Amino acid sequence: MPARAIPNQPVANIPERARTEGPFSAVFHEAAELVGRRWTGAILFALAHGIHRFSDLEVTIPGLSARLLTERLRELERVNIVERDVQDGGIRWSYRLTAKGDALRPVLIALNHWAVDWSDS
Amino acid sequence: MPARAIPNQPVANIPERARTEGPFSAVFHEAAELVGRRWTGAILFALAHGIHRFSDLEVTIPGLSARLLTERLRELERVNIVERDVQDGGIRWSYRLTAKGDALRPVLIALNHWAVDWSDS
Repeated sequence: MPARAIPNQPVANIPERARTEGPFSAVFHEAAELVGRRWTGAILFALAHGIHRFSDLEVTIPGLSARLLTERLRELERVNIVERDVQDGGIRWSYRLTAKGDALRPVLIALNHWAVDWSDS
Repeated sequence: MPARAIPNQPVANIPERARTEGPFSAVFHEAAELVGRRWTGAILFALAHGIHRFSDLEVTIPGLSARLLTERLRELERVNIVERDVQDGGIRWSYRLTAKGDALRPVLIALNHWAVDWSDS
């Protein structure tokens, strides 16, 4: 379970590029606000599971309206986490994670571990 | 770099308890909405760095009001991620991560890696 192998120590003790200068990090904060927006986690989770078409994303995530799905996907496109292309002669929109978006997999995996471990507590 | 060692594969391919039945997971969604609330990431990050007093948290996170800090800490207490105690003869509130909150460190670390790697893109 790779995510569990991460030593249980202060974030500041993690070496190399993950080190921050102190208990506040502007880039961390910005990332948390971005990835943490309502529905965004579930959308990234579905994309990471290979759901690509707008209509499939809509069906996959219960309670998410087409309007909000559109809004979130556009936000994720703007920050280069998602890219859009057209399929079936221009009829269907399809979305996929960019390299930047794909690099969020370890975050999704770690959060999923935590969610499964602690969902009853 | 433990978080980078996580194989780059669909979340569904991760074995054991992290496996989900499909591209939507109610517990993942709930966790993402909870941890992703505005300011919550930065608060958890500061707590994970050993900032415990309310007044220190307030100073650590630029732009976060005392009112919102109070609100977020109460939310995190309600879901057993943070616990509060009283120091200095009842004058100061102090907060710390519970075991459940401490178990979020791999998520914070993975998101911090991503943020540092991709902040310029």
